[in-house]
Amino acid sequence: MNYLMIFKSLGTLCYIEAAGMLISFGIALPGGDGGAPAFLLSALVTAAVGLGMSALRPRNTDIYAKDGFAVVGFGWLLVSVLGALPFLLSGVTPFVVDALFESISGFSTTGASVLRAVEDLPRGILFWRSLTLWMGGLGFLVLMLAILPGARANTVHIMRAEFPGPSPDKFVPKIGQVAKILYGIYLAVTAAVFLLLLLGGMGPFDAAIHALGTASTGGFSSRSASVGAFDSAYVEGVVTVFMLLSGVNFTLYYALLKRNWRSVLRDEELRLYAAAALAATALVALNLWSSGVSRAPGEALRHASFQVVSLLSTTGYTTADFNVWPALSQFVLFLLTVLGATAGSTGGGLKCVRVLLLFKIARREVGKLIHPRSIRAVTINGKAVEESTLSGVVIFFFLYVVLAAAGILVLSVDGKDLLSTISAVFAALNNIGPGLGLVETTGHYADFSTVGKLTLSLCMIVGRLEIYPVLLLCAPTFWRRVNL
Amino acid sequence: MNYLMIFKSLGTLCYIEAAGMLISFGIALPGGDGGAPAFLLSALVTAAVGLGMSALRPRNTDIYAKDGFAVVGFGWLLVSVLGALPFLLSGVTPFVVDALFESISGFSTTGASVLRAVEDLPRGILFWRSLTLWMGGLGFLVLMLAILPGARANTVHIMRAEFPGPSPDKFVPKIGQVAKILYGIYLAVTAAVFLLLLLGGMGPFDAAIHALGTASTGGFSSRSASVGAFDSAYVEGVVTVFMLLSGVNFTLYYALLKRNWRSVLRDEELRLYAAAALAATALVALNLWSSGVSRAPGEALRHASFQVVSLLSTTGYTTADFNVWPALSQFVLFLLTVLGATAGSTGGGLKCVRVLLLFKIARREVGKLIHPRSIRAVTINGKAVEESTLSGVVIFFFLYVVLAAAGILVLSVDGKDLLSTISAVFAALNNIGPGLGLVETTGHYADFSTVGKLTLSLCMIVGRLEIYPVLLLCAPTFWRRVNL
Repeated sequence: MNYLMIFKSLGTLCYIEAAGMLISFGIALPGGDGGAPAFLLSALVTAAVGLGMSALRPRNTDIYAKDGFAVVGFGWLLVSVLGALPFLLSGVTPFVVDALFESISGFSTTGASVLRAVEDLPRGILFWRSLTLWMGGLGFLVLMLAILPGARANTVHIMRAEFPGPSPDKFVPKIGQVAKILYGIYLAVTAAVFLLLLLGGMGPFDAAIHALGTASTGGFSSRSASVGAFDSAYVEGVVTVFMLLSGVNFTLYYALLKRNWRSVLRDEELRLYAAAALAATALVALNLWSSGVSRAPGEALRHASFQVVSLLSTTGYTTADFNVWPALSQFVLFLLTVLGATAGSTGGGLKCVRVLLLFKIARREVGKLIHPRSIRAVTINGKAVEESTLSGVVIFFFLYVVLAAAGILVLSVDGKDLLSTISAVFAALNNIGPGLGLVETTGHYADFSTVGKLTLSLCMIVGRLEIYPVLLLCAPTFWRRVNL
Repeated sequence: MNYLMIFKSLGTLCYIEAAGMLISFGIALPGGDGGAPAFLLSALVTAAVGLGMSALRPRNTDIYAKDGFAVVGFGWLLVSVLGALPFLLSGVTPFVVDALFESISGFSTTGASVLRAVEDLPRGILFWRSLTLWMGGLGFLVLMLAILPGARANTVHIMRAEFPGPSPDKFVPKIGQVAKILYGIYLAVTAAVFLLLLLGGMGPFDAAIHALGTASTGGFSSRSASVGAFDSAYVEGVVTVFMLLSGVNFTLYYALLKRNWRSVLRDEELRLYAAAALAATALVALNLWSSGVSRAPGEALRHASFQVVSLLSTTGYTTADFNVWPALSQFVLFLLTVLGATAGSTGGGLKCVRVLLLFKIARREVGKLIHPRSIRAVTINGKAVEESTLSGVVIFFFLYVVLAAAGILVLSVDGKDLLSTISAVFAALNNIGPGLGLVETTGHYADFSTVGKLTLSLCMIVGRLEIYPVLLLCAPTFWRRVNL
């Protein structure tokens, strides 16, 4: 393990985070609501930590596969702890665990909150929350790779450990350049939402908060009633379209820029994602209308499409209280959060490509019972997928279920009802935010105990880093010294 | 596909079922409650169907791998339909779907019921219900193999398709003899429960019903309040011990008879099963006591041990209303039903050996991330497990989750609350019986619609036959003609 190089890499992370704090300082200053000094102090501390780490001079500058996982693990820990400072220093919460929860919820693009009465919070704090979503969106370390001047080929190990999805190996050459292009697209999407919301008459601050929350599929809002507070079909339409777009693999936008239409239209994962959005919207709208929850078909369609896209993209914005929806709609929404967005997007969940592969592997397995000697490769977009990737995906699914069960078991010690407990864990693990029962709106996570909040924080990180990095860091064999 | 041989095999099944109906006729006759003629008529119809099928004269008497699945699929359909006759003809229910539900619930050892007020039902019907549990216990077709005079080596395909667990290949030689020994042990266990309950002062009829329900891990009772109705620590003790024993791989008892102690004590699946029972009892008892549901530690332990063993062995007897238990206890009980009993027992669920293998495969997969070139075999009881079995187990888990989700989706159209819907599907799929919410006691399945009852019936069969046979019978390629 190349510890020196690992910590040196993390130094750069601190600079980026300190820059984000300074922007929030700029937002907090004119408001005069008392948050500004907290940001200045947080930025100074964060920059100082970064300075200390960057001063390291490793002789060996290579980053190995194992180091990639360690950078991601330590990096997330560091960024989360430093990101909690503004919440503590501004006095928004006196509890370290609450500040950490809010910080982790941000960087993991979950958007769950332990803070009550969002409307009363200082503007700088609201902006910082949403900025953490945005920085975590495509991966905080991918952001670092986009900014680092000389990102080299072996940094692919960092990207592989953090980038969402089973196999981002296509980026091997010119990784820094790819990271720059991805963040460029991400920035353009965010700017588009901001401008469209402004055009719709939303104030610049609300527009910024919801642009950051939409593009990152995070879902922090400046209103307790979330997007529903604006009660505007235009706003809901803009947010719906851009939540859907932010759940799409960003490398497909890169392909579009290169006019490679065919690979986009034929992308099997994109097709599943689109089909899930359409089918679920139709089913939920029909269910809402036929059960009498919505009086008119148009109203049913508006609520259904917004909520389906919000949960499929794992954003978590709400316009309706789905706690009073029928069980069919609730379960469809739950399935969407587990399915999740596509690999390489800012969304969470299992990711469409994994579910697609699981069904293809299952079909092959059942076929083997009939023709035991047939060996067929599993393909995606016409290309055979390596068997090692397949077994990784299948075990990923098992570990996902096991970790969810473990999370529910620990959280149930809190003594909340079973449905709320289950819903809270899946909302955290899939990086959604709101759920059923007690956690219907994002603010109700405040009711959990310290142990409960830590459990949910861990679930958010496990979900965001897609299990393996976290499990690896817990494996004793991982820490045996091989090379320094 | 050797259709003639398949149907000829099924003829024998009908004879066995007709014999069971005649025994129930004997029970119904002295009662004078009007059920007796129904059993005589049912037995005649069933025997006639059997006679017609046995008259077939196939030239080729071989049974191939595919035929094994077809025998099991058709056999279960036939036995369930004929087993529904007594419920219809006795007038206990006028609905075909209710009679089918009750019959399938019996043969799959689920023990869920759509009949209300169990105490008012004719004795013959109550006995028939419990007898279907018993006949389905180790597999109706394995019972056939035990009785068939000249069961030959190639009938292993039938056993492989129906016997619970991933790989019963150790039985290949002398399959008929093994089936006989297994049913002999099963009979001895049942007789032991019967005698012990008689000794405890229970009436012979109640003792018979609960002996059949315990040994089969089925859980039909002659009382609405299930085993709790007797309010006897002795009865609960006997039932607890024998539910636990019936959830153990019956081939281990065979090993005990051969004085092969070591293989039993070292059996990894048995260890997991025992550890799960102990750990869950401790956790639930502590939770019941500390939350104030049980006033004394002794009471907590009594309720916890009974309910833990009842759900782990997938029996489904109840002595307490676990709907009012805290979420932690409820979730532990839920996890036990999914874990299930051991392979080769009368219990359902995923089976301990599958869960054990899943964790071992997951550990190997995480290890591969650290040492990509290491290839280690996964072992159980010191023996390497074939990779094809491993991939079958991993995909089994995925299909289990997918089918549960599909069942919940279809059942949620019924409009019951989400927790009841989810609980009902898992109670059916794991062959338990009672669940949370509406399905708290076995009788409340009556509230579901026709589509709901059919969905749950299918879940019970899918759970009992362990997915693959049912999926295979649905695959078009399975039916392509190869050999007749």
